[in-house]
Amino acid sequence: MIVDIRKWKHVFKLDPDRDISDEALDLICQSGTDAIMVGGSTGVTFDNTVDLMARIRQYELPCVLEISNQEAIVPGFDLFFIPVVLNAEDPNWIVGQHHEALKEYGSLLNWDEIVAEGYVILNGEAAAAKLTKARVNLDAKDVAAYARMADKLFNMPIVYLEYSGVFGDMELVRRTRQVLENARLFYGGGIDCLAKAQQAAEVADTIVVGNIIYSDLEQALRTVNVNFDRTGR
Amino acid sequence: MIVDIRKWKHVFKLDPDRDISDEALDLICQSGTDAIMVGGSTGVTFDNTVDLMARIRQYELPCVLEISNQEAIVPGFDLFFIPVVLNAEDPNWIVGQHHEALKEYGSLLNWDEIVAEGYVILNGEAAAAKLTKARVNLDAKDVAAYARMADKLFNMPIVYLEYSGVFGDMELVRRTRQVLENARLFYGGGIDCLAKAQQAAEVADTIVVGNIIYSDLEQALRTVNVNFDRTGR
Repeated sequence: MIVDIRKWKHVFKLDPDRDISDEALDLICQSGTDAIMVGGSTGVTFDNTVDLMARIRQYELPCVLEISNQEAIVPGFDLFFIPVVLNAEDPNWIVGQHHEALKEYGSLLNWDEIVAEGYVILNGEAAAAKLTKARVNLDAKDVAAYARMADKLFNMPIVYLEYSGVFGDMELVRRTRQVLENARLFYGGGIDCLAKAQQAAEVADTIVVGNIIYSDLEQALRTVNVNFDRTGR
Repeated sequence: MIVDIRKWKHVFKLDPDRDISDEALDLICQSGTDAIMVGGSTGVTFDNTVDLMARIRQYELPCVLEISNQEAIVPGFDLFFIPVVLNAEDPNWIVGQHHEALKEYGSLLNWDEIVAEGYVILNGEAAAAKLTKARVNLDAKDVAAYARMADKLFNMPIVYLEYSGVFGDMELVRRTRQVLENARLFYGGGIDCLAKAQQAAEVADTIVVGNIIYSDLEQALRTVNVNFDRTGR
């Protein structure tokens, strides 16, 4: 399958550590979303990742693994997203784990399948923020500087603003999007209805819908109906 | 001036914090080296950097600033090298200072002049290693993993193995060079005579000669005569 992330507008993110019924997974995969991203901050293992992948692979849409730990690297996804947490204070989440993984698997990798994500974690209450010791007290200029670093200094194809658990500052997202030349802006966090999906779609390139899948599937499915024509991209 | 770092085989590195006479600078700049790199770990200021640049600019060879601190960013160089110290334990030297500089100057930069260097500092006694809290206890596999990270994950044009003060492990340098697909391998450290320059030139793409300029200019100038044809590149 040829996978072009530049065409993605809407993505569902599934957590291998959370249960989803076959019926719910069927609705998610047939919803018209552009891709499924598999990933989570805690409790992600090889076994629960391979199980979830096998179930998603029964559908034709692109399926990506966002790697959060070396033990849960499962072959067979279309792409592998590698988060580089630019605002982490623990270097383990910027380069450390990546170094360990490259030392182990570096010579075996197909780099065409690997996509670096310049991550900025913006909700200090999120598990990911605590895990990475993220500097979350950032204004729009701070975030724009991280975005430029990812886009221009590191040539990363994705800048990912992650508010996981809360709906973010859309003005900050809009200003971040404006400084990007090549990278695509992914937005994730707090999209729990079509109206919020629409707001996020108007400032980001790609919106990621996650948690609401597990608490209100019907609202989650409605987010696919976001009108990207209104965004002018 | 169009500057193509891919053609550089030999570079002299001058430290703005150290004195060099006009006569010595003239011999360095007319030596046939491919470029002058300006940079240092300590004592680098705007004033001493601009002074040195003005003197080098009387010659026609390419002149690059390797940025080590935000206060010493002087316009007017052909290129600006940005070290990203991949084995630093202090994230300030991986992304922190870069973030501060991009916050300040991000919208003004001409990115065509900016080159990210994936640095690996390998001599624990060097000032740069102490400053950055570099993890120096690395074997060839560790260094190869950092090199792949710079080359493939971050798309950096340069991987820089820095042994400053001592002559490095040429077998480790050779093995690092082998894993690179696009990045150029710069080697620096302990090149104090033509024989060592030759050894380094046989395993690296570009050799950097620094300290010896200040202690034995004649030996330094001889390193330009390294025979790159023997390297097969």
